[in-house]
Amino acid sequence: MDRRSFLTRTALGSAAASAAATIAAPAIAQSQPTVKWRLTSSFPKSLDAIYGGAELISRKVAGLTDGKFTIQVFAAGEIMGGLQALDGVQNATVEAGHTMTYYYIGKDPTSAFSAAIPFGLNSRHQVAWMSQGGGMELMNEFWKQYNVFCIPAGNTAAQMGGWFRREIKTVEDLKGLKFRVGGLAGQVLSKLGVIPQQIPAGDIYPALERGVIDAAEWLGPYDDEKLGLNKVARYYYYPGWWEGTAQVSMLVNLDAWNALPAQYKLALETACEATTSWMMARYDALSPPALRRLAASGTEFRAFPREVMEACYRAALELYDELAASNPNFKKVYEPWRKFMEDEHLWFRVAEHTFDTFMYSRPLRSR
Amino acid sequence: MDRRSFLTRTALGSAAASAAATIAAPAIAQSQPTVKWRLTSSFPKSLDAIYGGAELISRKVAGLTDGKFTIQVFAAGEIMGGLQALDGVQNATVEAGHTMTYYYIGKDPTSAFSAAIPFGLNSRHQVAWMSQGGGMELMNEFWKQYNVFCIPAGNTAAQMGGWFRREIKTVEDLKGLKFRVGGLAGQVLSKLGVIPQQIPAGDIYPALERGVIDAAEWLGPYDDEKLGLNKVARYYYYPGWWEGTAQVSMLVNLDAWNALPAQYKLALETACEATTSWMMARYDALSPPALRRLAASGTEFRAFPREVMEACYRAALELYDELAASNPNFKKVYEPWRKFMEDEHLWFRVAEHTFDTFMYSRPLRSR
Repeated sequence: MDRRSFLTRTALGSAAASAAATIAAPAIAQSQPTVKWRLTSSFPKSLDAIYGGAELISRKVAGLTDGKFTIQVFAAGEIMGGLQALDGVQNATVEAGHTMTYYYIGKDPTSAFSAAIPFGLNSRHQVAWMSQGGGMELMNEFWKQYNVFCIPAGNTAAQMGGWFRREIKTVEDLKGLKFRVGGLAGQVLSKLGVIPQQIPAGDIYPALERGVIDAAEWLGPYDDEKLGLNKVARYYYYPGWWEGTAQVSMLVNLDAWNALPAQYKLALETACEATTSWMMARYDALSPPALRRLAASGTEFRAFPREVMEACYRAALELYDELAASNPNFKKVYEPWRKFMEDEHLWFRVAEHTFDTFMYSRPLRSR
Repeated sequence: MDRRSFLTRTALGSAAASAAATIAAPAIAQSQPTVKWRLTSSFPKSLDAIYGGAELISRKVAGLTDGKFTIQVFAAGEIMGGLQALDGVQNATVEAGHTMTYYYIGKDPTSAFSAAIPFGLNSRHQVAWMSQGGGMELMNEFWKQYNVFCIPAGNTAAQMGGWFRREIKTVEDLKGLKFRVGGLAGQVLSKLGVIPQQIPAGDIYPALERGVIDAAEWLGPYDDEKLGLNKVARYYYYPGWWEGTAQVSMLVNLDAWNALPAQYKLALETACEATTSWMMARYDALSPPALRRLAASGTEFRAFPREVMEACYRAALELYDELAASNPNFKKVYEPWRKFMEDEHLWFRVAEHTFDTFMYSRPLRSR
């Protein structure tokens, strides 16, 4: 693919043609090539909030460029599998992928910093780190080796800890537990005896129903209800400490990105930034009624016991020390990221968390 | 001002002129009128995060429209006072104002719902309410009577409770306290004996220094340090329960809004949405180092005593019941807003707050 020279030719051609119409046609006509991209989403259409983010970005970009820059969105499985987005973008099979970058920790665990790190940032911290804390620069230095530019383009906010067929009361209860859980959380939990399982979203229900696995996490009340997980497991645990935030990323082939006119780059970036806010708002608005429906259906909510949280936290720090010792990419991001997180904790303990804690202590009125 | 017919003439003129150049000039040239707006900010240039939001929106809108839609930003006092933004927009002296809508509770307290309500939503809830909870529609039904369209366009996140020359240990300590505090918080606090004072940002320092007032709140560590408030009061209280969120709004003259081409509307809306996220990220990143500097300068941090918080909370609910009984506009927004807040509390107590509380209980490492 030689997109850059294609775009250059188009832009020059257009400029030359409109030179004859200097007075009549505004200058804008000279710099607006037609650009058509294909995007692969890692998500199925049925999960309308997370999949819908890519469609919203596509609509916004088209609207902002008067239909000149179009992005055709394909659901997971339509042109490639949900976990192949990085490969597809790197190989320029598609120009863009809308995905969770922790799917690619098999290539390098550093990829998880642009999605979620167990016991890491919350959603406010993640947005601040990417936008104002150096995260965007650090991560794109990393992604450059895959010929990819990464833009935050959605966020599910804090997730749930998943569905369990039996209660987890002690750390011992984790031993031998077959748990559908991905990414670094699987590595943390395997230190405590869990047997992590990788199962695509659509296959979780039958696996949990038949007892092939003992537990499964997907996202939160709204999506999990759509997958029917409440019908095959009684206990719904929280919090999903491995996803205190979950950034969705727009991975863009770096040549395709570099070839975009500045206005299209700005349109895509601004649409992605607005969509991050939109997706969180959507989950924030859709989760409470889903939570009520789940409770009405017999789901029992359980907080992970403090002892279990503490053991997982220690295991996570141990894992990060190991990764930082063996992987220079990981170390390079982990150290400033951890400093940023500690700064956020210092500040959020003051105004933000004190306010929230007071408000959440108010009695809930019955409806 | 007859902006609509002006724009129509411009658009038609452009279309007619480019008709002669149909082949050379892309269709986009026909629908891109030049639009020049003036915007008054309610903030001084020195407060770069909150004032800077309007400049960022202006830059983004210009970039997204190839310089066709420009918004010239004026700081508070340059063409009108900081608190006159609503009047200026309503009277079409300017097309837009970047402001806090609780400045206008003298006209109608309902205006505060698009900024901050004491013991109200936090920032995540506010964004979700406006975007997905019906807030945007409800508030613009209200703003229509002022011939104004209101777009969320920034957020400071949870604020601090302000600077006090002496400690507040009991509800009794509030009696007779001359406190620079605005909006509905002043009305809540006056129920407990506080004498609220209205003083512009730039005049707070001398008033507090000379003892004309006993206490003053502005925003948070980053801005308050800029105003030098730590030099004239020792105790820095939290949380600012009257601003658990503080949305900054873009007020747009409704005729000017209606006259915009769809693409420019989308550019302005998307730029505002992205700027809300940017401004929070900016305060989130700038507040921790400011907090450290304030602590090093001798500032003593104090949480409002639980008894004081509870008394203020009861006074706030009493005020809202009074306002809902006497003001149909207020009642119309307050009731669905309160239901939305209760839903958010239900859900955020589960995954989000449990995760945050665990993380904020981790020991802070020394730096």
